[in-house]
Amino acid sequence: MLRIAVLGAGVMATALTFPAVENGNEVSLIGTHLDDEIIDSIQATREHPVLKLRVDERVKAYHFADAAKAIEGADVVMSGVNSFGVNWAGEQLASLATPGQTILCITKGMQADEDGTLHILPEVLKKRMGDLADKVHWAAIVGPSIAGELAVHRDTCVVFCGEQQEILDRLAKAYRTDYYHVWTSTDFVGHEVGACMKNIFAFGGGFAAGMLEKAGQADAQYAMYDYTAALFGEGARELKQMVTFMGGDPEVATGLGGVGDMFVTTMGGRNVRAGTYVGAGVPFSQIRNVTMKGITLEGVAAIDVVGEAIEKLTQRGVVAKDDYPLVRALYDIVAHDAPLDLPWKKFFGGEK
Amino acid sequence: MLRIAVLGAGVMATALTFPAVENGNEVSLIGTHLDDEIIDSIQATREHPVLKLRVDERVKAYHFADAAKAIEGADVVMSGVNSFGVNWAGEQLASLATPGQTILCITKGMQADEDGTLHILPEVLKKRMGDLADKVHWAAIVGPSIAGELAVHRDTCVVFCGEQQEILDRLAKAYRTDYYHVWTSTDFVGHEVGACMKNIFAFGGGFAAGMLEKAGQADAQYAMYDYTAALFGEGARELKQMVTFMGGDPEVATGLGGVGDMFVTTMGGRNVRAGTYVGAGVPFSQIRNVTMKGITLEGVAAIDVVGEAIEKLTQRGVVAKDDYPLVRALYDIVAHDAPLDLPWKKFFGGEK
Repeated sequence: MLRIAVLGAGVMATALTFPAVENGNEVSLIGTHLDDEIIDSIQATREHPVLKLRVDERVKAYHFADAAKAIEGADVVMSGVNSFGVNWAGEQLASLATPGQTILCITKGMQADEDGTLHILPEVLKKRMGDLADKVHWAAIVGPSIAGELAVHRDTCVVFCGEQQEILDRLAKAYRTDYYHVWTSTDFVGHEVGACMKNIFAFGGGFAAGMLEKAGQADAQYAMYDYTAALFGEGARELKQMVTFMGGDPEVATGLGGVGDMFVTTMGGRNVRAGTYVGAGVPFSQIRNVTMKGITLEGVAAIDVVGEAIEKLTQRGVVAKDDYPLVRALYDIVAHDAPLDLPWKKFFGGEK
Repeated sequence: MLRIAVLGAGVMATALTFPAVENGNEVSLIGTHLDDEIIDSIQATREHPVLKLRVDERVKAYHFADAAKAIEGADVVMSGVNSFGVNWAGEQLASLATPGQTILCITKGMQADEDGTLHILPEVLKKRMGDLADKVHWAAIVGPSIAGELAVHRDTCVVFCGEQQEILDRLAKAYRTDYYHVWTSTDFVGHEVGACMKNIFAFGGGFAAGMLEKAGQADAQYAMYDYTAALFGEGARELKQMVTFMGGDPEVATGLGGVGDMFVTTMGGRNVRAGTYVGAGVPFSQIRNVTMKGITLEGVAAIDVVGEAIEKLTQRGVVAKDDYPLVRALYDIVAHDAPLDLPWKKFFGGEK
């Protein structure tokens, strides 16, 4: 039995309380300052208003004001905020966490230095935590997992990745149930990079539907799966290339943390919806500022970061100019309002 | 300009006549003895009754009785029959083809010797062609391509694989259009094995829908994408392992001929439909003999062949007993009416 404190009450963080508490762990769910309505709702009726499910009675829900109390003495502190809150979460954990605790991250993404050097998010968190960073253990969860599916006990397979095998074993044991299947890996970098990259390509999963809609062919006899499949294939290639570039094991690409996660992310969600608008011809600046204003788009955020970094890394001669043609095309769409026109001939190492 | 004779008038063989004839090649479509109705229809109205589209006016349609006339003098003879007709096609080509022609295969699958040794289908065709086999050139088309999508000019990316680069270059040039994007590869074995394996895993793409239906949850708030994504990930792993085992380049797995093709095949079709029945609890023998009697299931055929071969290769000590847990589970379902119960803990190298 572990004492687990979860910082952030979003859908994924909350979904993970299900296997955790059912396994006999003691689980606290702490809303950030943005989660007050969620915590109010759970405290009053147990209902998570976004997940639209009842949270297990045994999960204690706290407002952020009570975070210190909830985190004190915990074995595991989960950082459950989204990628936009990582810097904030690091600053909070710097004062709330204590040596010996395990920080378990579920946020996907990367950040880049001015020169384009990319960092996985646990590294970013670490940086914000100062001296404490080396006194806690680090781990993260990746793999194909839709929050609501996990919460209603659908079979879900994930990878707990981190730096120390014994910590991963302890976490896996705490979380494993008959529906939550957990593998472990010390390829921390490889899995985190895979988790970021799959979000990038999932954005493209919406293009075909938008193009068909625009052409008045939403119900046509033949859809555009060939298009999405080719994009998926090139996505897998570039994911693998980036995992390798960042020092991870290329095998990540053909597993849960690679194409498995990319598959589930391509099946739906906000990112795919944003991609559908792109397919229908809406300039991305309009999607960002009007159509989907205020909606968190983790995939787009990843394209912004990685796309810009790749441009800089190319200028520095670290990345070849013909590499990552799909990331570059997506970045052009997202950053420069480029119309959708995939550079097929550049894919798969160049048409030849 | 090439003279292309297509043996078999199924949907995929017919779809490939579109880019071929639009590019100025001379194309003949020859029905097998099973395709008489299709050829009658094309000759009378240009309509392909299964594809439900008009075949280009410039494609000449022939009944099998006129095959010799259509194939004589052709540069390329496409073997467009399905995997069940490969032996037959090889025997026909042995008398119909002539030295110097290129045999272009579009059939996916493998065959096995009594001891479990697996062979790609072009090898099987070769064997049936006797001395002529070494006097013709060999190539095949793989990658995510739904026949109807290609025929209506949806962007489609494929790989022409074969033994000689100059032959592949010639074929690619003949087929490339602004919607049909062609790459080439001399990793013939790797791509053919990938094309067979993706059919195997696509069968599993239907399980989740069937399970939800059986549970009365077809319209539930949360579906089962996590389940299919995990299966997809393990499928990609086993595809890569088999490509490597057969002597192909493992890179095939993360490209068009691997996960790209697996993605499109998982999106629908007869194989996935058969998998849906399995998910709903129907014993496979009933699906094979009653529910889908007479319907060609290439994925199931591949499971039969590869699953049985893996058992034999394991007995011979050539394959480790813990390898290919998903293929083994699918084979159990298909060959022994095993109920659907995926061995999650054996996936991804074993839960650890």
